[in-house]
Amino acid sequence: MKQEIKKNTPLELNPNVSVDCVIFGFDFDKLNVLVIDRADGTSVPCALPGNLIYNNEHLDQAAIRVLEELTGLKNIYLEQIGAFGDPNRISKASDQSWLQKVRAQPEARVITVAYFSLVKMEDYVPQASSFAKSAAWIPLNNIHELAFDHMEILAAAKRQLKQMINIRPIGFNLLPEKFTLGQLHKLYEAILDKPMDKRNFRRKIQKLNLVKSLEEKQLGVPHKPSQLFMFDENNYQKLMQTGFNNFGF
Amino acid sequence: MKQEIKKNTPLELNPNVSVDCVIFGFDFDKLNVLVIDRADGTSVPCALPGNLIYNNEHLDQAAIRVLEELTGLKNIYLEQIGAFGDPNRISKASDQSWLQKVRAQPEARVITVAYFSLVKMEDYVPQASSFAKSAAWIPLNNIHELAFDHMEILAAAKRQLKQMINIRPIGFNLLPEKFTLGQLHKLYEAILDKPMDKRNFRRKIQKLNLVKSLEEKQLGVPHKPSQLFMFDENNYQKLMQTGFNNFGF
Repeated sequence: MKQEIKKNTPLELNPNVSVDCVIFGFDFDKLNVLVIDRADGTSVPCALPGNLIYNNEHLDQAAIRVLEELTGLKNIYLEQIGAFGDPNRISKASDQSWLQKVRAQPEARVITVAYFSLVKMEDYVPQASSFAKSAAWIPLNNIHELAFDHMEILAAAKRQLKQMINIRPIGFNLLPEKFTLGQLHKLYEAILDKPMDKRNFRRKIQKLNLVKSLEEKQLGVPHKPSQLFMFDENNYQKLMQTGFNNFGF
Repeated sequence: MKQEIKKNTPLELNPNVSVDCVIFGFDFDKLNVLVIDRADGTSVPCALPGNLIYNNEHLDQAAIRVLEELTGLKNIYLEQIGAFGDPNRISKASDQSWLQKVRAQPEARVITVAYFSLVKMEDYVPQASSFAKSAAWIPLNNIHELAFDHMEILAAAKRQLKQMINIRPIGFNLLPEKFTLGQLHKLYEAILDKPMDKRNFRRKIQKLNLVKSLEEKQLGVPHKPSQLFMFDENNYQKLMQTGFNNFGF
């Protein structure tokens, strides 16, 4: 087949390049990750949502498309983690036997470009399709095995999240619009993976001026309702203009 | 050709994946970048050192190999910037006419994985080989055009460098073992791309305890010789153990 024709075929998968997505959610207690089950009668471990790219699409677009195809999550803003290219990353026996069933060139070298995102869990109920038999939120700390090199990708996503939480106020993407300082504290503990003194945390967050308190309290909780807060985008923009570049958590 | 045989051929280039390297050097006044000239009689812009990966090599190894093949720079520690995958990243006419001469599949979709490094310029005299006709250090601010999407890659490398200088003491990789605070100041100005008050900078650096003063002064300079300093690795390690995570420049 001539290259000219290949280039213009809209839906030609590139056998050598894939994308994988690490989607984090927070359930007010711990971080969760979206994984798919590719069960095919044999026992294969779960995987991050991922697949080959089309030859005519941008990497970022491929990641958005693949995530939607496999899990139903739409219009998610994804940030690149990096490329993973161990020559043996897809050669485990269980991975190969699965690839033989779904790929035209199951033994081709595949490098993958990984993306991550933080979403409000309650807004996204995964719905599996394509080769995903199911798609579900799994607590991050319960994930001990994944297909391919996905454990390595997940570890890199965790590192990036940990680093970014000090540079940009990304944690708020994981919370509903209104939240309590207790919930925010739990979230920072989960992301930074360490216990943090509650009172110091509250003092620091309020000193940074990144949240504003509302004239509202929690509703329908079995304990004394806590005050609700919102992320303060205006104050954040002002803080950035001062050249501030680290929250110091 | 069967996949089995393809896999075991040691030197088969993957048509769809390349690596590119952004190597920064510092000449005590400004940042420089290592570029190659691929002159072939026609006029093509300079490029970052880069080429396709072999099917059996790790991405990181490919970057180290390609850098050495094109510029002679050996054993450089390279850090990944990320993957660049615009479907049109190699389709400019001048790039295509050059690719027609050197690639077996010049129109194949190529995504590239970019790497960067900081080196002591005086230790690395580039020596061109392979398809590089020459390799040279060019002042960063003089680079206005490069092949492919290399301007975009360069911009990403600059952003990453700017961010990392606050997280890890990477700047010292660009200086000789012994340096003056004036030289360090110039380096930070170049990386952060902004003028910085000299006295505040000195105060801050000394307060961070990251450099130790030596009982030595500059030799053979036409002005009053300045005191020499060294990076203090021990103090840096101690600082990191306190949970410190930002230099705040």
